[in-house]
Amino acid sequence: MITIRRLDISDAYLLIAGARDKAREIGVPMCIAVTDESGQLIAFERMDGGKVTSTTIAIDKAFTAAAAKKATHEYGAASQPGNPTFGIHSAIGGRLMVVGGGLPVAVDGEVVGGIGISSGTPTQDLQCAEAGIAHFLAMR
Amino acid sequence: MITIRRLDISDAYLLIAGARDKAREIGVPMCIAVTDESGQLIAFERMDGGKVTSTTIAIDKAFTAAAAKKATHEYGAASQPGNPTFGIHSAIGGRLMVVGGGLPVAVDGEVVGGIGISSGTPTQDLQCAEAGIAHFLAMR
Amino acid sequence: MITIRRLDISDAYLLIAGARDKAREIGVPMCIAVTDESGQLIAFERMDGGKVTSTTIAIDKAFTAAAAKKATHEYGAASQPGNPTFGIHSAIGGRLMVVGGGLPVAVDGEVVGGIGISSGTPTQDLQCAEAGIAHFLAMR
Amino acid sequence: MITIRRLDISDAYLLIAGARDKAREIGVPMCIAVTDESGQLIAFERMDGGKVTSTTIAIDKAFTAAAAKKATHEYGAASQPGNPTFGIHSAIGGRLMVVGGGLPVAVDGEVVGGIGISSGTPTQDLQCAEAGIAHFLAMR
Repeated sequence: MITIRRLDISDAYLLIAGARDKAREIGVPMCIAVTDESGQLIAFERMDGGKVTSTTIAIDKAFTAAAAKKATHEYGAASQPGNPTFGIHSAIGGRLMVVGGGLPVAVDGEVVGGIGISSGTPTQDLQCAEAGIAHFLAMR
Repeated sequence: MITIRRLDISDAYLLIAGARDKAREIGVPMCIAVTDESGQLIAFERMDGGKVTSTTIAIDKAFTAAAAKKATHEYGAASQPGNPTFGIHSAIGGRLMVVGGGLPVAVDGEVVGGIGISSGTPTQDLQCAEAGIAHFLAMR
Repeated sequence: MITIRRLDISDAYLLIAGARDKAREIGVPMCIAVTDESGQLIAFERMDGGKVTSTTIAIDKAFTAAAAKKATHEYGAASQPGNPTFGIHSAIGGRLMVVGGGLPVAVDGEVVGGIGISSGTPTQDLQCAEAGIAHFLAMR
Repeated sequence: MITIRRLDISDAYLLIAGARDKAREIGVPMCIAVTDESGQLIAFERMDGGKVTSTTIAIDKAFTAAAAKKATHEYGAASQPGNPTFGIHSAIGGRLMVVGGGLPVAVDGEVVGGIGISSGTPTQDLQCAEAGIAHFLAMR
């Protein structure tokens, strides 16, 4: 038998709060998704003005990061043409995201969930994902 | 050009708060989804213990109720075997939900969004959807 | 080799015009889709106020009627529980529609396309589909 | 609550008319799709000779442009190999289009819908999308 630890809903809202604050600071309304360690959605927020296309993209970034235990921008680097991971971006019906903005959420070295952000540039999305995790780790 | 009104993110959290309170009262952890008037997701919460299968079901109930401007249980009644709407439940890739728990959210007689609940019985789901709307209308 | 006849785009707009006029007459804004004899979309109109969910449903009704050469309400009757066609409604990823409002369009006994209507009751949808065909046959 | 403006069906037909005229001028029969600001289809025309594959492509270009508020060719540039957005083209089940020919439609600086064209080269598709918007802005 395996015992796992995962984010609860109050953790998810801490992650969203941190990401939202950063999104406001940089002036880009974001879609923010949080999943558990299996990649299943726990909470989602589309800030007013967040892109409709980014709903699915944010959810899939969080899914990828949590379930693969890997930041989506790392997949982006690894899957460039010429690399052996090339082509992975259309896996799982296109759900495996290789664009930055998805991060695994780890506690004590263990992945307990994922956060995915979309609506800005990959750099902005990643920045908000990092802010979400920093807020969660500081406040929990 | 058409001018329409839709829920914003703070409205969505009022709807979720009302539904969550009722879910706690009846002791059934729920998945709670809120969409805009076009059926696009604004906010989602899976309460601790809410069912993973109910994530998609709650989102699709809110989508159906908002975009078709009709409670999902009304579709359920209209689509029973022998009725002319029989078979509608697998439309739109199965997204059209005919199980109770999805309600359009209306303000001044105009549909501005939808709420969808899943994890309990259809009656419990509907009860929480109604509680979400009541809280939203009282607090906004 | 096979030679086939199919609707052209001006035929499609005649079908839409007839359906739209009837929709206005009965006061129900509709989604109206026209396909060629292979079930491929030629033209589509969502009248102001037509349901977002009905976009796909109208297209799939026209697809079913044209490609199966059968009115969707006939499938509805044939696929009721207890009948051998029961269960057909979820075929083709749910695209096979068994709810009324989809009709094949025939000229000289030959199916040349399909029309699909959605947003009202199945009876209203069918009424508008019939009006579309009547207008097309009178005006072409 | 948020108040938004979106295209109505007569606006959609202006966009189609402008795109169709340009398509005739350059001698390439096109698929032409118009969505509202949420990316939901309002109107579609496959000109006689337009490609069947282009039906979905045109609809998805309009969806992407409207819902992401960005021209599809801008995504194309941003998602070339080596760029951080590489791999975005298979997102949302492949609906996120990065090939030119999809443009957001803006009025007074606000995105109110999208137009998507397909059947020609990306340059020809874009040219027709631009012509559709020019006609709409001139005639409305």
